[in-house]
Amino acid sequence: MNTRDAQQVAERSAAVLYERDRASQHLGMKVVEVKPGRARVTMRVTTDMVNGHEVCHGGLVFTLADSAFAFSCNTYDRSTVAAAASIDFLAPAHAGDELTATASEQWRSRRAGLYEVVVTNQKGERIALFRGRSHQLDGPVVGSPTG
Amino acid sequence: MNTRDAQQVAERSAAVLYERDRASQHLGMKVVEVKPGRARVTMRVTTDMVNGHEVCHGGLVFTLADSAFAFSCNTYDRSTVAAAASIDFLAPAHAGDELTATASEQWRSRRAGLYEVVVTNQKGERIALFRGRSHQLDGPVVGSPTG
Amino acid sequence: MNTRDAQQVAERSAAVLYERDRASQHLGMKVVEVKPGRARVTMRVTTDMVNGHEVCHGGLVFTLADSAFAFSCNTYDRSTVAAAASIDFLAPAHAGDELTATASEQWRSRRAGLYEVVVTNQKGERIALFRGRSHQLDGPVVGSPTG
Amino acid sequence: MNTRDAQQVAERSAAVLYERDRASQHLGMKVVEVKPGRARVTMRVTTDMVNGHEVCHGGLVFTLADSAFAFSCNTYDRSTVAAAASIDFLAPAHAGDELTATASEQWRSRRAGLYEVVVTNQKGERIALFRGRSHQLDGPVVGSPTG
Repeated sequence: MNTRDAQQVAERSAAVLYERDRASQHLGMKVVEVKPGRARVTMRVTTDMVNGHEVCHGGLVFTLADSAFAFSCNTYDRSTVAAAASIDFLAPAHAGDELTATASEQWRSRRAGLYEVVVTNQKGERIALFRGRSHQLDGPVVGSPTG
Repeated sequence: MNTRDAQQVAERSAAVLYERDRASQHLGMKVVEVKPGRARVTMRVTTDMVNGHEVCHGGLVFTLADSAFAFSCNTYDRSTVAAAASIDFLAPAHAGDELTATASEQWRSRRAGLYEVVVTNQKGERIALFRGRSHQLDGPVVGSPTG
Repeated sequence: MNTRDAQQVAERSAAVLYERDRASQHLGMKVVEVKPGRARVTMRVTTDMVNGHEVCHGGLVFTLADSAFAFSCNTYDRSTVAAAASIDFLAPAHAGDELTATASEQWRSRRAGLYEVVVTNQKGERIALFRGRSHQLDGPVVGSPTG
Repeated sequence: MNTRDAQQVAERSAAVLYERDRASQHLGMKVVEVKPGRARVTMRVTTDMVNGHEVCHGGLVFTLADSAFAFSCNTYDRSTVAAAASIDFLAPAHAGDELTATASEQWRSRRAGLYEVVVTNQKGERIALFRGRSHQLDGPVVGSPTG
């Protein structure tokens, strides 16, 4: 596949995936950029996302990173899911912050892949570093029954 | 501190933390059990939690585990936050599932702690295994300005 | 397969694997117990294992845990390798210490598995907690060309 | 501290640390480059490093990465140890391979730090990706009793 086709597949896969992804939609996430093996997703921290320490719940920072990971590893139109992930929390995010998660592929074999995601706030400060391991299933993203 | 007092501190810390934790509340989580170093939290998977593969978004499974982790590591009335965490996804959860996250302390030093969380569904099937590293701050949970 | 046969397969797999495992032998490790999905391996910390902080090199504590992991996940006579692993260091080990790594299976699917390993010293103090993700290959352990 | 002084401190810290690090020496590791927050370490895979699958024991690949991590996080003359680490194994290494571990600092706070290490073979192929979390102790590296 040439570069242009690969880009179209990446964009189409992300569009189909996002359309079905009620969780990411419900949390106000937007997919602002997709390339083969890469994705950038944004999310605004609302007051409903604040935890008992009055900062953004780490789980929701993870969820943003996990969505960016999902969009980046599904750019080949092969249905791919998360097998495992880890996150390091560097700084708190607060209500009103605009977070951006940038995912990039580090490595990919036939079935498995590794992706790094950096989460930053509107000042460019790093909030969290995330690493995800993907597992490719048998079906496509776009051509699936629900695609 | 005797066992009974430790249990009261654990319950009071969890109550104060939960009251401020709009994220966990908003996601429908309930803290069903708290002991020193332990917590059990439930969450029902709603249709708003489903991702592009039509199963519960892994980020929200993580968020449930992360909340159980937070409640378990804050049972000593010392304000404690997550430094890092990792998760392995074992099986998908679906809309309508009732998930339970059970957190237990593995180890604790002066400032750091390690907690394991098992997430199961209503059939007792394991959905995910989570491990969190905590970092203790200087203040209390209950006596904090917002406590 | 009945329990007795499963135990024999586990012991035979470990014996074959250990015989080829020059690294574990060279580091003085001994496999002291094997059951399906479980293994216990010991190692004495020598003065050649000490790092720049004058405690046992964390990499060698990891190596001990990794060997216990390898022996435990290869107990089914299916050639199985490590895909990923993580370790938390709880306390230092010193030259002369006798370390024991106890590995137990947490979960296993068709191809993947998760194993926990606890490393303790001769006083029973925990030195490290390890978690490994295994990946099963196509061949057997015992019947392989080199088995 | 200016750049030149910082480089001298980094080199001096690494030299002192390596001199005491019998494990890294014994495994034939060489520190080929050090900069503030960075280190590059090499190791030749010997026949004594081979495991039961007849490839380099993953623990020793980890040990190489862990040494590079240690040299990189101790470049500020503050005694710093590993709190936790994770590794993903991408491809096997074989006896005779010349491995290089390149560590770089991703983030550092007052006490904690995160470091990435890439392990490659003599063909430039990536063997493993490693991430370490450091914890800074109170003393210096160079001025320590054993320095």
